[in-house]
Amino acid sequence: MEAAPPGSSRPTEPGPCLSGQRGADHAASASLQSAAGTEPGRHPLAVAAVLPAGGCGERMGVPTPKQFCPILERPLISYTLQALERVCWIKDIVVAVTGENMEVMKSIIQKYQHKRISLVEAGVTRHRSIFNGLKALAEDQINSKLSKPEVVIIHDAVRPFVEEDVLLKVVTAAKEHGAAGAIRPLVSTVISPSADGCLDYSLERARHRASEMPQAFLFDVIYEAYQQCSDYDLEFGTECLQLALKYCCTKAKLVEGSPDLWKVTYKRDLYAAESIIKERISQEICVVMDTKEDNKHIGHLLEEVLKSELNVHFLDFKLVPPSQKMENLMKIREFAKEVKERNILLYGLLISYPQCLLPSTLEKLVISPWTSNDDQKLQESLRQGAIIIASLIKERNSGLIGQLLIA
Amino acid sequence: MEAAPPGSSRPTEPGPCLSGQRGADHAASASLQSAAGTEPGRHPLAVAAVLPAGGCGERMGVPTPKQFCPILERPLISYTLQALERVCWIKDIVVAVTGENMEVMKSIIQKYQHKRISLVEAGVTRHRSIFNGLKALAEDQINSKLSKPEVVIIHDAVRPFVEEDVLLKVVTAAKEHGAAGAIRPLVSTVISPSADGCLDYSLERARHRASEMPQAFLFDVIYEAYQQCSDYDLEFGTECLQLALKYCCTKAKLVEGSPDLWKVTYKRDLYAAESIIKERISQEICVVMDTKEDNKHIGHLLEEVLKSELNVHFLDFKLVPPSQKMENLMKIREFAKEVKERNILLYGLLISYPQCLLPSTLEKLVISPWTSNDDQKLQESLRQGAIIIASLIKERNSGLIGQLLIA
Repeated sequence: MEAAPPGSSRPTEPGPCLSGQRGADHAASASLQSAAGTEPGRHPLAVAAVLPAGGCGERMGVPTPKQFCPILERPLISYTLQALERVCWIKDIVVAVTGENMEVMKSIIQKYQHKRISLVEAGVTRHRSIFNGLKALAEDQINSKLSKPEVVIIHDAVRPFVEEDVLLKVVTAAKEHGAAGAIRPLVSTVISPSADGCLDYSLERARHRASEMPQAFLFDVIYEAYQQCSDYDLEFGTECLQLALKYCCTKAKLVEGSPDLWKVTYKRDLYAAESIIKERISQEICVVMDTKEDNKHIGHLLEEVLKSELNVHFLDFKLVPPSQKMENLMKIREFAKEVKERNILLYGLLISYPQCLLPSTLEKLVISPWTSNDDQKLQESLRQGAIIIASLIKERNSGLIGQLLIA
Repeated sequence: MEAAPPGSSRPTEPGPCLSGQRGADHAASASLQSAAGTEPGRHPLAVAAVLPAGGCGERMGVPTPKQFCPILERPLISYTLQALERVCWIKDIVVAVTGENMEVMKSIIQKYQHKRISLVEAGVTRHRSIFNGLKALAEDQINSKLSKPEVVIIHDAVRPFVEEDVLLKVVTAAKEHGAAGAIRPLVSTVISPSADGCLDYSLERARHRASEMPQAFLFDVIYEAYQQCSDYDLEFGTECLQLALKYCCTKAKLVEGSPDLWKVTYKRDLYAAESIIKERISQEICVVMDTKEDNKHIGHLLEEVLKSELNVHFLDFKLVPPSQKMENLMKIREFAKEVKERNILLYGLLISYPQCLLPSTLEKLVISPWTSNDDQKLQESLRQGAIIIASLIKERNSGLIGQLLIA
């Protein structure tokens, strides 16, 4: 059994690879062209993205900056880059990282074969990092591959689950309004403390929203705003939409975002991200069977039982020729190590069935009480097998690869 | 190997049981007496808690109200009740649930043997539910076990990780100031939209806080506030501290809370909660060894390797007499099912070591290439065993109990 990332274009690379969830790529691209008012024969809207990734993640409670924290052995920022990369109409992605993390970032780009990425040095605050990213896009530097976009997306390195549809919405709204940003309802009431640490006032929750990412801007608007803004803004400000409003009188359009846009901030968010990624990538299994041809129906019975438990797609059934004995099954540990490199998790599962081709040594251990009512035993074993498979898929436990489990 | 909840006082009950993380019970109780100005011979401060649990969890995207969603097969609200129950100075816990969930709640209380719980009917809004809880504490109803407390804690059913220290802080501050609540820094900037869905203004993040739970009040203050407040407040209000301010001129003291106080709101929060609970309960393992007495040192070697990988406490080593043959090991599946009822997850692990007491059938499979350099092989097997144990502890995968894993 294996669980492989669907639609992965990089099978030789380690680490999970998320595919788009809503299959909106083509439709989105088409409507972007239309929203941008382009016609056949004219240039499409030029869009770039800036990702500030210079934070040190002090809220995470771990020494590694959160954007570099591994999730299933792959750094968080790599998932975010992947989410942006798969949107074909984003031409350039500028990532701002601190000098000390520059080499780490380069190795991530190389290892996961990220494309269309340019690196700039981060500033000491988020706003300064974004400004550096914008400068790289604005200036016609010699040898620079970058050119000034019409619209620039600003996103966070720690929001890996951004989908194309919300990117499209903010870009389209930015084209029309000059600025746009994703918002979400507030989860907690917001209050203002007085100087003595007591409640001064509380805000009506329904009248306020959390400003999330992505945001998008006409490049000239946001670049102008950053050039005009004060050192105080650059040091203490947190809101790009506010800069556009304050310095360019541009009222941003607010776009309702999905819960998936949340920012990975605390350790619990890493747990949540890991579970979501596991859920997304473990959607296909391949069952390799070591059985006689005429017992192929056991595979189909298993598929039936599993379908009621899991929302997975069966990739394939393969029958191993009966000439290959159980000795070979013990080799699954070696084979499992090998295919893990390609992010395939392989486990062995023994379904107890008297007609199965089992070598005597294991058969003895497994089906010794096998006396009557074979069909009921088989059903029980299949159910147990389904529970084991469901657990393995849910947990995506790479520590157990190559084990022979008994249903 | 098993992973059992430490300090569980209910070993016969299914479902995990969280123990206090900071061991602050005694110290906290002592300082509460002191903070409340009580002296020996006088009555300690009377504290009760009200938990509104009438929400329908529409943000979760699942049909079950979030407070009843299972985490490791136990409903979320049961963890929260447990967190309050283990604080010995909270005398009564009043839970407000809707009529349709009343029976569900009663069965949870029975199954997990919750104590000091009284149920009242929830209102249609959070404020109305809290008000119902306060009324139950205020009125001297015939046959009521409840008596009016001096201080009342208000907490959410969906914040299971509340610790005694923050409860103590808000109660102590409420005793002094009349009202107190936990706060957290804002994760996102808060904005106000204009009627046309554009940005009206954004708030300075550093000057605002998220108001979280728990909160605490002098009972007379908050009860008075609820009795005075308008229907509009009861329908649309979200902030108890605001009611105390508006109707009783009581300025709540704000207490910095820990990140653990967050509210389980979205599906991702369930994932995070599950991971945190797994991490907390899987802190002890017991290694049962089937080996000769003179190979006991393998167990200690394994412990050494594990200690470097895991932050777990070794509960015990047990040697199974060598007379029990490997046939018995196959019975671990039956035994595993049995002990799972007591929330003990049992797995088998075979460490490859030539002097181990292995029955020939499995020995053949496992150590066939065993020719030279036994010590290196053993080390490798121990390392592999540690990886497997670490995976099992982290994932707490009940679907794999009773399996014999090979290191």
